[in-house]
Amino acid sequence: MNGKPLVSIVSAGLSKFGKHEGLYARELFSYAAKEAFDHCPNLNPKQDVKAMFIGHMGEAYEHQGHTGSAVADWSGLLGVPATRTEAACASSGAALRSGIYAVLSGLADVVIVGGVEKMTHRSTAEVTEFLAMASDYPFEQFHGITFPGLFALMATAHMNAYGTTQEHMAKVAVKNHHNASLNPKAHLQKEITVEKVLDSKPVAWPFKMYDCSLITDGASCIVLTKPELASKYTDQPVQIIGSGQASDTIGLYERKSLTSLLSTKTAAKTAYDMAALTPQKVQVAEVHDCFTYVELMDYEDLGFCPVGKSGELIDSGETCLGGRLPVNTSGGLKAKGHPVGATGTAQVYEIYLQLTGQADKRQVKDAKVGLTHNVGGSGATATVHLYRSEN
Amino acid sequence: MNGKPLVSIVSAGLSKFGKHEGLYARELFSYAAKEAFDHCPNLNPKQDVKAMFIGHMGEAYEHQGHTGSAVADWSGLLGVPATRTEAACASSGAALRSGIYAVLSGLADVVIVGGVEKMTHRSTAEVTEFLAMASDYPFEQFHGITFPGLFALMATAHMNAYGTTQEHMAKVAVKNHHNASLNPKAHLQKEITVEKVLDSKPVAWPFKMYDCSLITDGASCIVLTKPELASKYTDQPVQIIGSGQASDTIGLYERKSLTSLLSTKTAAKTAYDMAALTPQKVQVAEVHDCFTYVELMDYEDLGFCPVGKSGELIDSGETCLGGRLPVNTSGGLKAKGHPVGATGTAQVYEIYLQLTGQADKRQVKDAKVGLTHNVGGSGATATVHLYRSEN
Repeated sequence: MNGKPLVSIVSAGLSKFGKHEGLYARELFSYAAKEAFDHCPNLNPKQDVKAMFIGHMGEAYEHQGHTGSAVADWSGLLGVPATRTEAACASSGAALRSGIYAVLSGLADVVIVGGVEKMTHRSTAEVTEFLAMASDYPFEQFHGITFPGLFALMATAHMNAYGTTQEHMAKVAVKNHHNASLNPKAHLQKEITVEKVLDSKPVAWPFKMYDCSLITDGASCIVLTKPELASKYTDQPVQIIGSGQASDTIGLYERKSLTSLLSTKTAAKTAYDMAALTPQKVQVAEVHDCFTYVELMDYEDLGFCPVGKSGELIDSGETCLGGRLPVNTSGGLKAKGHPVGATGTAQVYEIYLQLTGQADKRQVKDAKVGLTHNVGGSGATATVHLYRSEN
Repeated sequence: MNGKPLVSIVSAGLSKFGKHEGLYARELFSYAAKEAFDHCPNLNPKQDVKAMFIGHMGEAYEHQGHTGSAVADWSGLLGVPATRTEAACASSGAALRSGIYAVLSGLADVVIVGGVEKMTHRSTAEVTEFLAMASDYPFEQFHGITFPGLFALMATAHMNAYGTTQEHMAKVAVKNHHNASLNPKAHLQKEITVEKVLDSKPVAWPFKMYDCSLITDGASCIVLTKPELASKYTDQPVQIIGSGQASDTIGLYERKSLTSLLSTKTAAKTAYDMAALTPQKVQVAEVHDCFTYVELMDYEDLGFCPVGKSGELIDSGETCLGGRLPVNTSGGLKAKGHPVGATGTAQVYEIYLQLTGQADKRQVKDAKVGLTHNVGGSGATATVHLYRSEN
């Protein structure tokens, strides 16, 4: 591979992220689908779309499995082959990967990938339990550890190895809340300060409340096609030029390192090699910040800075809007929100806006190369994708 | 398309179906993977396999999501991109479809598809509730109807429209139990009689206990590659020459007909057209018989007989071993068992054995063309695949 487009993105949609009382997931998804279809008038969805892959993490939230078909029907795509993909919080990253395969197969010229999760009607205790189903039942869940605790173990190891501090982590929250304040679809559109993060109530040391991503309802949707067909649907396609996915042990106890995710590093290498790009070429990135610390680990695993230097990178301001490599311009999982199944393709939505010049107040000037990075569970799955616009 | 091979099956594995006390799903899957790997000595699994798709229906059984990565690790495939697919009881039919896309994409020359479900450690009431999550929550589940009830509604409509009887349904059970008695991996290896079916306790009229498929633990696994690479791994490849998947409304209340599944008919048409085959060319088939009536409906939807004539077809004995078109030679969901996520690729396993002459006492003589048909929920998903051997 040499950076040739794999597939083209010709439209995208995103529901408002936040609380949506009284909607089922299938209804919520239709808002994302409607935006994607409205912005693509030459698309005849029911006729053109040949496959759908829908990331959806938890049956427990709505006591509802078999989400692919239901989502297809409620979006006006009755009959279209529709499969739910699940890889925990990387469920729609996996949907994207599956959709790329489908387009490249030659059997499906237009494919919808997306994701949805309806979470806010459940109590925090219930959501915490449902999310824990992405960790290792016999070795982790059964003993009572939950996701804040698992990632706190990793953060603590990084603090010990490299001197990373709670202030470094707090700065990630401050940056992402600022970005979300510029994003009308973000769940929390308010600025915060380092002090506010540090003074917020503890969740799992070293994480305070403002280090944690949000329990959110949301849906996202991307329309993929072959590069040679893209001009039929848009004059501003975004090309996907690299795709990587990798797995790791589901439990932390068997990992060689707690200060990095092997799955991220493997997926990133695959994607960079396929795109014939180095990390230095990336101009805007949406990375998995389920906890503030995780964004720091991502910087290192994705090659944005040397190992152990992510604290310095956030200190430098280079990942802020206006910096060399703005990260999580959408507000990220931290402030835009983390409707788990929707997150992977919501990241793609932001990169699509950025590379087509539609990101408004948070636009990265002249951005032409983007990256998305989606993590499942505590890193048993990671997907990395690279994007290029030709405009 | 014109019947050219899409992909080749070069190995397959199946765990014993039945009760597996003390095993997690990930452990159970490794038995299927080991058989597939043992029979394919030229395969270096960790090096060659570039993607996995694992059908797994219910997180609730083991309080465990994120199954793809866990299954990969326990099968010696740590690191391989692994995605769970879920389309209710068609979860591994959807895995197969996703795997075909992956091989055809050119990004993954060798792909594992499979499925697993661990069910028997749960009570019948729990399993009934978990399975109901594949139906429509607000319009069906919430009101208390379960899967025996949903399919009973369909059976009743067919009885009313075409004079189909409980005896016709019982004959499906008798046939499939006979076949299972010849299958050492089947859950129930015992013959039954029409009288025994009719005398068994009612579940949901017209279904008696022996009309219902089994709650079973099991796993299945198929190794796919490009046709041009197949000879590296086996001298007996089975070619997949047609693949269809379709969706329908998740709830029954919006369907135009209750006596057939539109998803099956659509998926079958796609697969037959792709393979350039008519139903008359099929020599052995594994079809979705979650209830005895469903096999009768399948005969009509798959074109094995005219609409309304499935009762006559089962009466004729033509779908028995030794008949013109033996159906469910494995014993089917009815008697081999129905570990829901594993069922789709377990059907493929049986066709693989039949088309490579390895089906022993239930071998269909000179079988060269096979079909599998997998249904999700009450028909919101269906997949149909066609196979050909060249030996």
